[in-house]
Amino acid sequence: MDPVRLIVIGGDAAGMSAASQARKRRGREDLEILAFERGDFTSYSACGIPYWIGGLVEGPDGLIARDPAAFREAGIEVRTGHEVTGIDLDSRTVTVRDLAGGRVLREGFDELVYAAGATPVRPVWAQTPAGGVFGVQTLGDGAAVDAWLDSTPKPETAVVIGAGYIGVEMAEALIRRGLRVTCVEKADQPMSTVDPDMGALVAEAVRKLGIDLRTGVTVQGLETREDRVSAVVTDAGTLPADIVVLGLGVRPNTELAEAAGLPLGSSGGLVPDLRQRVGDGGVWAAGDCTEVLHLVTGRRVHIPLGTHANKQGRVAGINIGGGYATFPGVIGTGITKICDLEVARTGLTSREASAAGYRFVTATVESTNRAGYFPGAVPMTIKLIAERDTGLLLGAQIVGRTEAAKRIDAFAVALWNRMTVTEMTALDLGYAPPYAPVWDPVLIAARKAGEALSAG
Amino acid sequence: MDPVRLIVIGGDAAGMSAASQARKRRGREDLEILAFERGDFTSYSACGIPYWIGGLVEGPDGLIARDPAAFREAGIEVRTGHEVTGIDLDSRTVTVRDLAGGRVLREGFDELVYAAGATPVRPVWAQTPAGGVFGVQTLGDGAAVDAWLDSTPKPETAVVIGAGYIGVEMAEALIRRGLRVTCVEKADQPMSTVDPDMGALVAEAVRKLGIDLRTGVTVQGLETREDRVSAVVTDAGTLPADIVVLGLGVRPNTELAEAAGLPLGSSGGLVPDLRQRVGDGGVWAAGDCTEVLHLVTGRRVHIPLGTHANKQGRVAGINIGGGYATFPGVIGTGITKICDLEVARTGLTSREASAAGYRFVTATVESTNRAGYFPGAVPMTIKLIAERDTGLLLGAQIVGRTEAAKRIDAFAVALWNRMTVTEMTALDLGYAPPYAPVWDPVLIAARKAGEALSAG
Repeated sequence: MDPVRLIVIGGDAAGMSAASQARKRRGREDLEILAFERGDFTSYSACGIPYWIGGLVEGPDGLIARDPAAFREAGIEVRTGHEVTGIDLDSRTVTVRDLAGGRVLREGFDELVYAAGATPVRPVWAQTPAGGVFGVQTLGDGAAVDAWLDSTPKPETAVVIGAGYIGVEMAEALIRRGLRVTCVEKADQPMSTVDPDMGALVAEAVRKLGIDLRTGVTVQGLETREDRVSAVVTDAGTLPADIVVLGLGVRPNTELAEAAGLPLGSSGGLVPDLRQRVGDGGVWAAGDCTEVLHLVTGRRVHIPLGTHANKQGRVAGINIGGGYATFPGVIGTGITKICDLEVARTGLTSREASAAGYRFVTATVESTNRAGYFPGAVPMTIKLIAERDTGLLLGAQIVGRTEAAKRIDAFAVALWNRMTVTEMTALDLGYAPPYAPVWDPVLIAARKAGEALSAG
Repeated sequence: MDPVRLIVIGGDAAGMSAASQARKRRGREDLEILAFERGDFTSYSACGIPYWIGGLVEGPDGLIARDPAAFREAGIEVRTGHEVTGIDLDSRTVTVRDLAGGRVLREGFDELVYAAGATPVRPVWAQTPAGGVFGVQTLGDGAAVDAWLDSTPKPETAVVIGAGYIGVEMAEALIRRGLRVTCVEKADQPMSTVDPDMGALVAEAVRKLGIDLRTGVTVQGLETREDRVSAVVTDAGTLPADIVVLGLGVRPNTELAEAAGLPLGSSGGLVPDLRQRVGDGGVWAAGDCTEVLHLVTGRRVHIPLGTHANKQGRVAGINIGGGYATFPGVIGTGITKICDLEVARTGLTSREASAAGYRFVTATVESTNRAGYFPGAVPMTIKLIAERDTGLLLGAQIVGRTEAAKRIDAFAVALWNRMTVTEMTALDLGYAPPYAPVWDPVLIAARKAGEALSAG
């Protein structure tokens, strides 16, 4: 019997995790795997790009987990520089263009993994033929930014548009590269993924880095000179910019899937079931092109993160390989570092909890990462959100300097298990003076939230 | 009406937490609080003593959270240097000796908190009138060690007996103070709170510090010279020792409680109910003198830790104050640091799981604290234990260099909530390159344990 043929669209985290897991469970005589990747790289850490640009990490090679040769050796054929341009679910074929040679192929499949990722949002005003305007999503994008920074004339000023995770991380990277950096944000705070009071701590850290952070500012257009970007025009003046980085989020790459008749969710992402299936059979989707179930709100949301992509890809691959696995959803955990400021969140912010219709209380505490008397003890701030009538933890946010943000995991596991903040006060967490005060900040926050419930 | 009178026996974490919580809920006109402490200090961090002796922390004052004057100001009368020598539950009085003046008082109570702590185990061979042999439990013990290290003739050699948390921490402290240190342990590994394979990593780190660690060695006696200890005699030779530190564990101080007719558990600790009540009414116990319920084995165990003492004391105090709170139990979380080696555990070790009768699988993984390419990425080892038939997580152990051990909290919260290792693979933990590989070590360990279950 001929082997089953699996085609994978997209050679990054989700697609290649699926391929690897399927290969692990089914031998070559049983399963043929062919992956197409539009860009030049496979299985890389897009999250590492700001650190590469900032010079902390060797790129692009350092960010690649597994290259096409390694996949080939493992029995997974990968063709980079190949863009899938059409999917026919009836005839079970894809159309593929070889971007170098221009050749167009048709390839048949039995199983299909759609893992085409996402693309940075680029408003109409940013759609210029001039050079120097970048989204940062693929390793190719990173290489383009890196090359531009070394181009002639050498860029001296940068404007980063959007002060979310990528915006702030790229602003820091560009400061490290010696540029004068302005970061423009439409909202009144950077990092709208945390509450305004926590965002204020982020704003302070961003400004301390020497980044000119301007909130409440709307971008209206770009100016160019000799085919290079030269300035960003805003409702609060014109900002010189030899390079512009877009940090306005990404949208799922689902045009092909939609054209093939696969249904999309309200965010434009595919809507896989628990086993990552889409459509009628033999079609799977994973990663940034999909929506995920938010386990706190019960809503489908688009949260493009490498950690979700890897898990979804693994689940799809196990199922393709004849195993059984599910991806239940997410709870909105996020974490980042701005210079030495650690920022993390899980669950819902106040804004998100309100939008979801929750009645809640909040509690904010100041504590330290280590016993107050221990060398290296520094402050951290934790804010909790708990449902008023049930006491259930709904969300947590942390801002601190060291050994702070990863404490979000304790909250994430508690939230995942629907703990109340009062139950949390009894948790048996690790205590020793180099690691925590005798009441860990996590427990202090839970106590304070419990008190807020009693008071409220 | 006269105020209710609360007497607290023991002025450290458990007792003073109870006093503080009770005071918070009931005013002075309603509740009189009188605490007796045998030693000179109140509410201190005994866990910090090794860091004080090692010179990392200013002691003893730096280790005191709240002194008698501060308690007095808050409406809590504390008498240090006062030892309670008898409890009469019928007449509801305690007998107290003023250790300085020798005066004996009788004081009546309505409510009683028994929080007398624990005392280092001192075998018959260690009961010598000679100086230089110390257990390390109270701040007074710490002061005595500190003074001895500066005494004449200045101690040059140290033997620490027992290589558990306190033993290893004190051995490191004594190395920092410039002594030649031998650490003697009866078992075949240091830190028997982790499995032998993890213990081997600890042994390596201990030896790298320059500590002469000798496992599988039994102590037989002490030698003394001119009223000072001079050597430790073992079944593997005699070791010179100008100071001997006992790290053989502690036993609950419950003689008084037993004499008063309060029932003890098999470890000799008091057995409070969920609200920390012992006996028939108005009597409470908390801290190192009590047993706690181990939520994984369902057994009552003696795990004397400041973090439990604080929680139990708080629960007792809330209840005394007219509120409602419970202390459900513990899951055996422990954490320590040996130089830069981080060690943590939660739940059950292999030995403990066997003893409890579990059928289980284990899985050990190597991963890194940060993305492999990120500066400062170093290895860590995680070992998981999962019940074979259910897949429930039973225990976790971590050994690493930095940002490793506190990951135990994610396992602790998962274990607390009775998660299976397979459920754990979906957890939405914080991911960004400075904090974790895209698969956090916690998730990699859960995956590996899941695979061990399938294989096993």
